[in-house]
Amino acid sequence: MQHIEQYQKPFLKYLEGFVVDKEPGNLYNPINYILQLGGKRLRPILTLMTADIFGGNADTAMNAALSIEVFHNFSLVHDDIMDDAPLRRGEETVHEKWNLNTGILSGDAMLIMAYQLFENYEAQIFQALAKLFSKTALEVCEGQQYDIDFETRDDVTIPEYLKMIEYKTAVLVGAAMKMGAIVAKASIEDQNSIYEFGRLLGIAFQLQDDYLDAFGNPETFGKQVGGDIIENKKTYLYLKTMELGSDDDTLNLKTFISNLELPNSNKVAKVKEIFVSSGASAATQNAVKDYTNKAFEVLETLNISNDKKQELRIFGEQLMNRRV
Amino acid sequence: MQHIEQYQKPFLKYLEGFVVDKEPGNLYNPINYILQLGGKRLRPILTLMTADIFGGNADTAMNAALSIEVFHNFSLVHDDIMDDAPLRRGEETVHEKWNLNTGILSGDAMLIMAYQLFENYEAQIFQALAKLFSKTALEVCEGQQYDIDFETRDDVTIPEYLKMIEYKTAVLVGAAMKMGAIVAKASIEDQNSIYEFGRLLGIAFQLQDDYLDAFGNPETFGKQVGGDIIENKKTYLYLKTMELGSDDDTLNLKTFISNLELPNSNKVAKVKEIFVSSGASAATQNAVKDYTNKAFEVLETLNISNDKKQELRIFGEQLMNRRV
Repeated sequence: MQHIEQYQKPFLKYLEGFVVDKEPGNLYNPINYILQLGGKRLRPILTLMTADIFGGNADTAMNAALSIEVFHNFSLVHDDIMDDAPLRRGEETVHEKWNLNTGILSGDAMLIMAYQLFENYEAQIFQALAKLFSKTALEVCEGQQYDIDFETRDDVTIPEYLKMIEYKTAVLVGAAMKMGAIVAKASIEDQNSIYEFGRLLGIAFQLQDDYLDAFGNPETFGKQVGGDIIENKKTYLYLKTMELGSDDDTLNLKTFISNLELPNSNKVAKVKEIFVSSGASAATQNAVKDYTNKAFEVLETLNISNDKKQELRIFGEQLMNRRV
Repeated sequence: MQHIEQYQKPFLKYLEGFVVDKEPGNLYNPINYILQLGGKRLRPILTLMTADIFGGNADTAMNAALSIEVFHNFSLVHDDIMDDAPLRRGEETVHEKWNLNTGILSGDAMLIMAYQLFENYEAQIFQALAKLFSKTALEVCEGQQYDIDFETRDDVTIPEYLKMIEYKTAVLVGAAMKMGAIVAKASIEDQNSIYEFGRLLGIAFQLQDDYLDAFGNPETFGKQVGGDIIENKKTYLYLKTMELGSDDDTLNLKTFISNLELPNSNKVAKVKEIFVSSGASAATQNAVKDYTNKAFEVLETLNISNDKKQELRIFGEQLMNRRV
């Protein structure tokens, strides 16, 4: 992705310079550790790219982009505690490498540092960024709570699920882009439209993630294919099967899920068959397309040149055609 | 304390109106719970009082005061997890009443909500409040980390201890007052002086807490007298004994601390004797007086009427003469 690389390199360089060399080390070393663990850095890249598109200087958006990345990593540190996850990007999670208290406290510090990264902007921009950030961060917390609540509920509806992934994932994509627009002093109308573009693309992205988790290419998909099925996660594929499937489909799905003796590879294969036969697989692919198209429609309303619209469209298509 | 009541009543009324009636309930109910658990609400009262003293309207400082209280309660929720504390003000802590994940996530939401409470202030005031808030909140995290680090160190120095209590406790008192001054549009000079007054008084307050924990009146002291001694906490009294005590004093102190068979009441009595004989008790009382006097010296430099200086002095004296 040509456009991504153009912003990724300077961002990674800026991130490297952000190493916190302060006392107490037990608070700041875990922060340096998680920020250097890698990742595609898609969210901050979107901030830089959007600032550029609205005629701003990508460099002036660097602190806003970094704030988004620091916040994202804060949420990973606290979520990994809540999920009791031992690994993150193949390395130990913060609470595993250190301990629970370090995970909590270093995470708290990162949330505060994310706000501090707005401090060099003038007062009006600062307030706009911080307001958007707070609203988004609170929604991310709400999304995480819904995700936790859904684990113990068996009556989750599709609209509820969509709201959960919107809050947990998509609003941060929208906010990342809107921050670029705020820094570039785009009109309020354009700020809101680019937020909407990012939000819709973020929902499409997450639905595609649900799809690829079952049907992705094991050679290129980053995570274990079938992971959601093995963990009995109530993904869009699962919920759509419950909605669209025949009585046989839903009964079989429930049977495979509650069958603890079935080897994982069999279970994944069987459940995937039901996802296809029920029509849930096709419905998920359609939903991805729908949200992507809705995002592209919003794109048309932006007050930017056609070249720049094209740039955003290519970016969206690359993101949605990923087989990674 | 007359002045306290004058501000406490409207603040409590405002706090009652802050009940968050939003979904998901599992995220917001614990926030309502901890905020209604009680407490003296000293910090927000200081914000209101300071706004009043600098000619502002205490009412306009209400959201800043509430932000301080929400932040303070955020830190209690996360600290209670780290300390594995079952009770807070005689009631179950959030992670006990709900669970670990709820404690983490509701705490995160409170930290964000504390920032949101600044949003109704104009951009310049908003930025000043948010900057001060971030600096202070990060210092509170650092103070908590030092406190955790000190538990497993036996070479903690008095300056290190003073820095720890300054960060963990005193800077929030200073910030609470400075926020009142910011909202009242006091001069930068006065803003900085009132911060210094609060910071010094906060250190005095915490040192007095160390003193009262051992020598307070069991009838009126809120916590179990001798609690720090029973838990082998390295308080100012302990560190001063190590500095000032004879070889006998320090040897005896270490013996009592490592003696797990000694009944608590005996242990408390013996350790208190050493605190007195070593001169640590008197040194602690002197330190309290020193910091209080330093705070009162700063008071003299404020550009406010003598009546108002007198008001702050009376408040400081009431706070320091407490036997509660």
